[in-house]
Amino acid sequence: MPQSTDRPVLLLFDINETLLDLAPLRASIERLLPGGAELWFTTMLHYATALNLAGRFEPLPEVGAAALRMLAEGRGLNLSPQQAQAAIAPITRLPAHPDAAPALARLRRAGFGLAALSNSTSAGLRAQLAFAGLAPLFDAQFSVQDFGVYKPNPQVYRGAASRMRVAPGQAMLVAAHGWDLAGASLAGVRTAFVCRGKQRPFPLADEPEMIVQDLSELAGRLGA
Amino acid sequence: MPQSTDRPVLLLFDINETLLDLAPLRASIERLLPGGAELWFTTMLHYATALNLAGRFEPLPEVGAAALRMLAEGRGLNLSPQQAQAAIAPITRLPAHPDAAPALARLRRAGFGLAALSNSTSAGLRAQLAFAGLAPLFDAQFSVQDFGVYKPNPQVYRGAASRMRVAPGQAMLVAAHGWDLAGASLAGVRTAFVCRGKQRPFPLADEPEMIVQDLSELAGRLGA
Repeated sequence: MPQSTDRPVLLLFDINETLLDLAPLRASIERLLPGGAELWFTTMLHYATALNLAGRFEPLPEVGAAALRMLAEGRGLNLSPQQAQAAIAPITRLPAHPDAAPALARLRRAGFGLAALSNSTSAGLRAQLAFAGLAPLFDAQFSVQDFGVYKPNPQVYRGAASRMRVAPGQAMLVAAHGWDLAGASLAGVRTAFVCRGKQRPFPLADEPEMIVQDLSELAGRLGA
Repeated sequence: MPQSTDRPVLLLFDINETLLDLAPLRASIERLLPGGAELWFTTMLHYATALNLAGRFEPLPEVGAAALRMLAEGRGLNLSPQQAQAAIAPITRLPAHPDAAPALARLRRAGFGLAALSNSTSAGLRAQLAFAGLAPLFDAQFSVQDFGVYKPNPQVYRGAASRMRVAPGQAMLVAAHGWDLAGASLAGVRTAFVCRGKQRPFPLADEPEMIVQDLSELAGRLGA
């Protein structure tokens, strides 16, 4: 267990998959793209990141709908923009993983600052946290829209720390995706990896400071 | 058919999947990750792009091997770095699609400048084009390593055009991936999409100037 002087002041939480269970979204995507939900999710992230590297910022739901239409068309299924939007609509109605709310409450009581930090849009993130019942547990909610660039651009992690008036090294990102932790680490932010579903750390990134099976393990290891 | 004054001076060709058939690589990946070759390829591209957005440049084979280990571990299979490298080794021994060499030869005879432009490493690209028998058909081979950033960063497309002493608008990228054409278009380069396998244009990108089923259709439409 770390010493209290070594405790991060602020915990930044990734939302999709890390705190929220993607199962309803996966089921909706699989109805159109059998076996393809994981590919769709990664394709959405890849295209959002790639457009950003090329100098464009497009909101995640629009990238997700376009990626779904593209993948479906490759399988001989033509979707209208409306059909694609309807298929990804469950993204704002995802339940929290059962360990999320109790662990966040415990960390809050132990005095950690807690902020959401998501590639979702500002409005989408608000809707997600309200639906999942997690909104009251956070001191702040940050969307990449606040910064105009996607994670893992270091500006996002540093920007969130700065708005919470802490140095990057006083913050810790908690996330279930290796690319996210890689960016946080390059931004000077501490990292904890939560193993959700088939997600595992990325071997080329800096080793996460903690690898935990769920958020109650995280709370325990942070002394909460 | 475009007027000759409207013809691009330089054709930039993406290599993996656009000119080369990924089937041997897919088969090798599927042996470890049944049903997961497409997911692996997209994950490799996503992580290469994401690390780049975060300020790091890692060679594609290393990103690909790390992505394979990560995905395999999520399915309960622990691969050594050597096992992962062995699984992606077929990437330098891919056959050209049957339409590639005849169309490139035709375009060459018609006076177009032809250059390879790949996210592969410099050494990997050389090996790929030599194995596939396409090397003699190109005036130049560019790897993203020449520019220190991955496609779709605009510097790659503009850099390749500049080294070939043409303006971006005199060049056309030929590729089978929407994110690649999106970047080229944002860099002021003209675009042609080749439909390989399940690949289709990305609805949020600028519409490609041409969408062709194969490279002989491209040659025909360019008047070669």
